[in-house]
Amino acid sequence: MAQGKPPVAVADGLTTRARRNRPLLVVHGGEGKGKSTAAFGLALRGWNQGWSTGVFQFVKSAKWRIGEQTALETLDRVHAETGQGGPIEWHKMGAGWSWSRKAGSEDDHAAAAREGWVEIKRRLAEQTHQLYVLDEFTYVMKWGWVDVDEVIETLANRPGHQHVVITGRGPAPRLVEIADLVTEMTKVKHPFDAGQKGQKGIEW
Amino acid sequence: MAQGKPPVAVADGLTTRARRNRPLLVVHGGEGKGKSTAAFGLALRGWNQGWSTGVFQFVKSAKWRIGEQTALETLDRVHAETGQGGPIEWHKMGAGWSWSRKAGSEDDHAAAAREGWVEIKRRLAEQTHQLYVLDEFTYVMKWGWVDVDEVIETLANRPGHQHVVITGRGPAPRLVEIADLVTEMTKVKHPFDAGQKGQKGIEW
Repeated sequence: MAQGKPPVAVADGLTTRARRNRPLLVVHGGEGKGKSTAAFGLALRGWNQGWSTGVFQFVKSAKWRIGEQTALETLDRVHAETGQGGPIEWHKMGAGWSWSRKAGSEDDHAAAAREGWVEIKRRLAEQTHQLYVLDEFTYVMKWGWVDVDEVIETLANRPGHQHVVITGRGPAPRLVEIADLVTEMTKVKHPFDAGQKGQKGIEW
Repeated sequence: MAQGKPPVAVADGLTTRARRNRPLLVVHGGEGKGKSTAAFGLALRGWNQGWSTGVFQFVKSAKWRIGEQTALETLDRVHAETGQGGPIEWHKMGAGWSWSRKAGSEDDHAAAAREGWVEIKRRLAEQTHQLYVLDEFTYVMKWGWVDVDEVIETLANRPGHQHVVITGRGPAPRLVEIADLVTEMTKVKHPFDAGQKGQKGIEW
């Protein structure tokens, strides 16, 4: 567990309070497991702080509901009913975004991804959430489905106090450059290597 | 997201179903962030499957309540009240284990850690949980607070269908050897490097 002691002093004129509260851009990359799982785990902390959290799943398989979605939506319901914690919205690209009334642009993933990004950009400008999880967004950037310059510019200059967590393999170098916290999940050993298959509760 | 297709066929005589359902020993190691967070994220999946989950925090700072504890205990309450999901127990060493009536062996961390392990061993034998999170247990092993041979032997031969997730830096080589899934969280960039301090919702 981190001790909260910075190894270097920085002469940036910020008070400890200001520095402690700076919004973070977090990236979970690497070939190993845990990138998304750790991002959803952070949403638990945000919920406990009473933050508004928006999860955006940029994956085709998002038609498939993972356990975290049900659990986090349950915490959102607890918030709505009792006021404990904060609101959590879960949006996914798979069958058309939750906010969209269109039947879904399933055949055109690039268009669907762009639509997701446009909405996130709008929310960042309006400071809708305190925490954004952009799950598997590195691929959307890598495949050129969004304008990388625009993404970098938007994230780097987002207003207010908004944390953003981006997951996925191979984050763009410029994303790593503007990020505050970058962790790489490295595979040391995986049950698939031993012929084991994905299983409930572990993979979903 | 993993596709569930094993890259090699293994002639172990198991059916797909048996192989899919094999209980896993999972290790999250490395110097980076996300080891514990990803483990607590897995607990969300287990909760959604209706599993019984036991979290055991082997850290002195466990006196300090982290956001995940409140969030997971809230999901446990939802389970108790509505039957949705599964039960989650959260035990921590910091101020004496939750199950212990003793005022806590705060001055003797080795004794407290051993007491935790004895309880886990008992629960594994009784098949109390489907998912165990042994948070920061690698240190307990490294510092010799528990008998490493006994831990390896107990984990390798645990009965029934019990998943175990162990977190912490520098997992013992023998632990890695018997584990099914090992991920190393590698630090690429950390805000402390830039003089930033730990902050709510991110560090706790």
